[in-house]
Amino acid sequence: MIKAGIIGATGYAGQELVRLLLQHREAEIVWYGSRSYVEQTFSSVFGNVFQIVEDVCKSDDLQELSREADVIFTATPQGYLAGVLDEDILNNCRVIDLSADYRIKDVSVYEEWYKIKHKSPELIKEAVYGLCEINREQIKKARLIANPGCYPTCSTLAVYPLAKAGLIDMDTLIIDAKSGTSGAGRGAKVANLYCEVNENIKAYGVTTHRHTPEIEEQLSYASGKKVTLNFTPHLIPMNRGILITAYAKAKPGVTGEELRRVYQEAYGEEYFVRVLEEGVCPETKWVEGSNFVDVNVMLDERTGRVIMMGAMDNITKGAAGQAVQNMNLLFGIEEAEGLRLVPMVP
Amino acid sequence: MIKAGIIGATGYAGQELVRLLLQHREAEIVWYGSRSYVEQTFSSVFGNVFQIVEDVCKSDDLQELSREADVIFTATPQGYLAGVLDEDILNNCRVIDLSADYRIKDVSVYEEWYKIKHKSPELIKEAVYGLCEINREQIKKARLIANPGCYPTCSTLAVYPLAKAGLIDMDTLIIDAKSGTSGAGRGAKVANLYCEVNENIKAYGVTTHRHTPEIEEQLSYASGKKVTLNFTPHLIPMNRGILITAYAKAKPGVTGEELRRVYQEAYGEEYFVRVLEEGVCPETKWVEGSNFVDVNVMLDERTGRVIMMGAMDNITKGAAGQAVQNMNLLFGIEEAEGLRLVPMVP
Amino acid sequence: MIKAGIIGATGYAGQELVRLLLQHREAEIVWYGSRSYVEQTFSSVFGNVFQIVEDVCKSDDLQELSREADVIFTATPQGYLAGVLDEDILNNCRVIDLSADYRIKDVSVYEEWYKIKHKSPELIKEAVYGLCEINREQIKKARLIANPGCYPTCSTLAVYPLAKAGLIDMDTLIIDAKSGTSGAGRGAKVANLYCEVNENIKAYGVTTHRHTPEIEEQLSYASGKKVTLNFTPHLIPMNRGILITAYAKAKPGVTGEELRRVYQEAYGEEYFVRVLEEGVCPETKWVEGSNFVDVNVMLDERTGRVIMMGAMDNITKGAAGQAVQNMNLLFGIEEAEGLRLVPMVP
Amino acid sequence: MIKAGIIGATGYAGQELVRLLLQHREAEIVWYGSRSYVEQTFSSVFGNVFQIVEDVCKSDDLQELSREADVIFTATPQGYLAGVLDEDILNNCRVIDLSADYRIKDVSVYEEWYKIKHKSPELIKEAVYGLCEINREQIKKARLIANPGCYPTCSTLAVYPLAKAGLIDMDTLIIDAKSGTSGAGRGAKVANLYCEVNENIKAYGVTTHRHTPEIEEQLSYASGKKVTLNFTPHLIPMNRGILITAYAKAKPGVTGEELRRVYQEAYGEEYFVRVLEEGVCPETKWVEGSNFVDVNVMLDERTGRVIMMGAMDNITKGAAGQAVQNMNLLFGIEEAEGLRLVPMVP
Repeated sequence: MIKAGIIGATGYAGQELVRLLLQHREAEIVWYGSRSYVEQTFSSVFGNVFQIVEDVCKSDDLQELSREADVIFTATPQGYLAGVLDEDILNNCRVIDLSADYRIKDVSVYEEWYKIKHKSPELIKEAVYGLCEINREQIKKARLIANPGCYPTCSTLAVYPLAKAGLIDMDTLIIDAKSGTSGAGRGAKVANLYCEVNENIKAYGVTTHRHTPEIEEQLSYASGKKVTLNFTPHLIPMNRGILITAYAKAKPGVTGEELRRVYQEAYGEEYFVRVLEEGVCPETKWVEGSNFVDVNVMLDERTGRVIMMGAMDNITKGAAGQAVQNMNLLFGIEEAEGLRLVPMVP
Repeated sequence: MIKAGIIGATGYAGQELVRLLLQHREAEIVWYGSRSYVEQTFSSVFGNVFQIVEDVCKSDDLQELSREADVIFTATPQGYLAGVLDEDILNNCRVIDLSADYRIKDVSVYEEWYKIKHKSPELIKEAVYGLCEINREQIKKARLIANPGCYPTCSTLAVYPLAKAGLIDMDTLIIDAKSGTSGAGRGAKVANLYCEVNENIKAYGVTTHRHTPEIEEQLSYASGKKVTLNFTPHLIPMNRGILITAYAKAKPGVTGEELRRVYQEAYGEEYFVRVLEEGVCPETKWVEGSNFVDVNVMLDERTGRVIMMGAMDNITKGAAGQAVQNMNLLFGIEEAEGLRLVPMVP
Repeated sequence: MIKAGIIGATGYAGQELVRLLLQHREAEIVWYGSRSYVEQTFSSVFGNVFQIVEDVCKSDDLQELSREADVIFTATPQGYLAGVLDEDILNNCRVIDLSADYRIKDVSVYEEWYKIKHKSPELIKEAVYGLCEINREQIKKARLIANPGCYPTCSTLAVYPLAKAGLIDMDTLIIDAKSGTSGAGRGAKVANLYCEVNENIKAYGVTTHRHTPEIEEQLSYASGKKVTLNFTPHLIPMNRGILITAYAKAKPGVTGEELRRVYQEAYGEEYFVRVLEEGVCPETKWVEGSNFVDVNVMLDERTGRVIMMGAMDNITKGAAGQAVQNMNLLFGIEEAEGLRLVPMVP
Repeated sequence: MIKAGIIGATGYAGQELVRLLLQHREAEIVWYGSRSYVEQTFSSVFGNVFQIVEDVCKSDDLQELSREADVIFTATPQGYLAGVLDEDILNNCRVIDLSADYRIKDVSVYEEWYKIKHKSPELIKEAVYGLCEINREQIKKARLIANPGCYPTCSTLAVYPLAKAGLIDMDTLIIDAKSGTSGAGRGAKVANLYCEVNENIKAYGVTTHRHTPEIEEQLSYASGKKVTLNFTPHLIPMNRGILITAYAKAKPGVTGEELRRVYQEAYGEEYFVRVLEEGVCPETKWVEGSNFVDVNVMLDERTGRVIMMGAMDNITKGAAGQAVQNMNLLFGIEEAEGLRLVPMVP
């Protein structure tokens, strides 16, 4: 059994890790870390695991945890892990970081967008970006995984095949994203109160959202050239789910059949990425609670534009699910172990 | 592997059966019955199982199905199964009926509340009421299971220990129930449109709801005397979940400790019924997508009244989950197989 | 024009006062008090009044405000007004208090349920309980109005006719209440986050909710005897609305026709209380954004119990709307001025 | 008093017309037309107007209605009005059509996108497109108003100033739209059931939505050249509201200040179009139940793209509100009469 520790277990991503690991046959949770609830039972915070989890919340002592666990998941605020991670910890166990600290290779880009001084830039290089479908082989050999952000996971997977195949003009790429409210975290803020979010929709972080450079970096690798794009997220009155609608000019002569073929080739072997039937639009409900990403592509003959779409559960494949998928790769377990969950409808 | 057939697979209870059976290690679905979608792929109706289920929907030919399946689940309109079930079918396979046709032993009560002439009253007697925690032993030997209604499951389990122990005055029992909208089914009705249900709450079926006699019958067995009660359901703007708040006069001298002890004794050994800590109120979110029923009890010293509470997912423990639990009992499998699902939060 | 000042203008009840007073032909707002947002424009907090309200938020200096305003509305935390109100202020202007400070005549009951020492008990006696349909004449002559709580308004109006007429056994009264989330206020608490409330329902404050003694006091006046009852509120995933379902034993021989006649007589002349057609259940959607309370009553012949129902918008008739209705009465304006709002559907 | 008749009064737009006209000081409703509910009281369908509206629903006899009314609102399925409208009716009274029948000047475009043969193409020319802020003067003199579609109203107003001023490259225009579910109408369809829409988001009508040519036509007038664009609507789990996020390349040298100045100039005098403060993103909640359209614009210096945003209530300004605004213009009443509604929060 893999011994797993979670730092930040009482946030939404942390709690999802708990849900997934409890249903995993080859892992067990040895540390429920939560600074806010230290010494309280975890199940008093999340009643769903009453009589399932007996554990009490512990501190965020990463050094001690690294000696007890085979893998540590950090679902912590930006900058936290960069401030405490060191060689000692990485020699003791694997680390899967759900924060943004090691996702962006150029530390100056990280510091500019996050307005944080990076405390351990020397570790950035070895960190592997844990987008499993793209970086599977490097992940297997890593000590430190930078688990991708929710928007970047869905955006990158929805656009990747065309970026790679060179079928769209990357300079025209626009990503319009919509997310359920769990993506905003479990902090007590007026803006996230029920009555503020319910019966409402708004864009936020327009031109400035921190996931922008992460998506740009990944799509730059895919396309082989530097990508600059527009990314606009919107807050949706629902708990879970991200929907991506992306637009770009098709290269001259590209056909709808060609577009679909490229997606089939890219994802035909992938269990978690489902290329929907022609003309079917992804819906977040169809992936809720699961690790699937549903994608599709359409060509608008009138405008010569390609519409790429992706739907995903933001706290499963967009956070905890992908983290478990990374753990499975790290430890040589079947990649979908603990993740063959049928999405919940309705 | 148990071969399972579903009649009514494209309703919400039917679809939940699909979700649960796909995650069950000892059963497989051999028949996706759906009159409305015959010859269409099941996954074109429920995109959540795209690339998981390849099957095409079939008719409701129960005779043929009974020769192919070990167990048939009928998630069908009231009166349907009573009109087609016969000895032949019951000799071929087990039947778990999610409709109300065989739940009420007194056929005249059924006919009065449902306004339907029962077509096979001779089968009512042998049917076992599939409330697993109460009728476990009889269920194991049955051919025909009357799977309990959603409200009756939650109501009965929330009240049962006190009814059995004689600690409340059954003549004062009032059950105020609240249900998510999936309980109203997947039929296209104006009253169930998003804009009619959202941002709204109402009572319905006041004094006339069909689940009333079913609850009364079960609590009559428990208390050993004929129970007549008030049952008032309310429609809540959420997909899943039932909450029961029940009120009754405590018998003289009854204490809060005694009340809690009776629940602990009744359900201490039960995996699916969780007696919450003292003072904790059940929440439907804590059981979402799972087969749990969370219950609790409080004594109001000021009024001498007991408040009994229960929370449950109406299409899991309230329909499909309990049906699978019944299947497990029927076939001698571990009772919780396929049902050890951690509730989904948020 | 009546000059109105609001203390606590940036809470949900305060903001609703703003909405209503802006549409009132004989009042104007001269003071937007909000300790948290002092010196910020009110419309930067509530964008709905952008370009409608230019004012900047002010402090809670009640003395100064009392010299500028004809009427002060206090939508403030429990205990605040009792700590600052004095003869000076009451000599300068009328005060309509939306908190609970002056609702309960017996100060020891207030202090027991609210766990607060009352700082100005000498003012309690003169305060008039502003349930307009019941206390209309006293309100007209008052200096200080105790604006009723949301649950007490709906509960009292739903039960009042039968309590007054003596047609139910008051010792058997149970009130099961359901409220939208705006009733929980605009404070930043984890329990009121979107993802905690959405897709969830729970009871809270069982046997201990502070509105219990307020309802008991009012129904005691109506029935002429001391009433002790069960009151159980539930939190519903919607913004606005309260639904009351109340149960009591009918006195022997009471008929359904008699029950309905008593409601017609009680409310036949009232604009804001609508007695629905026989058999129609109130829905919160039908009163949303308005000052209406919809009520109905049914007799269950099987159990001999009466079911009383009421629906209301908790921040309109349950707070700000009734406060404006009280203001109209205080200043001799037509009672429905500014309140003839058609409920918003959907 | 203007006598108004409504055909299609029991749909969501029709019901909103009722709500608005009941609060209008110079109009009265003389005809509640609803084929589905003929001879039933209107308030039995929409309980919100119980004791406010006593009328019974009538047929859709347009000829008779035209002799009783000064203005007819048709909130009817596409193709209906084109099939029955004639000179007689137009000589008797003014007609404001909320369907799409007379919005598009080129009948072949209408027939291609709507798949309907237009039955009265001779009337298209005289119909005035009722986007009040743009066509105010022509509206005043019209007999027949083509009330704009919901998406076109919000999209056109959000983009119009830049299209007119020539500050964006119209060939790069992409409109990503999000709508509440009332836009889907009140028909009983499975896809619009609560449980299908709730906790879900999806794009629909990608590349084919019928509002596309309507937006293109209006923006072609504004920009003086033929516009072809991408329009992608999404269904959002909320009752009311449309949010538009539009993207286009800025012309070389354009600055953010210039963009904002153009909006201020275009809408500075308009009551219903509010240009938000710099950097503030529109939210549908801030306009709910009102006739406002909130717009804003940002320049992304990194990509050289302009992001235009608009928020509106789809059944108020997007349907019934704008229809009343058109009526006010037609009859020489103050344009905002009956429409000075403060948006409802929360």
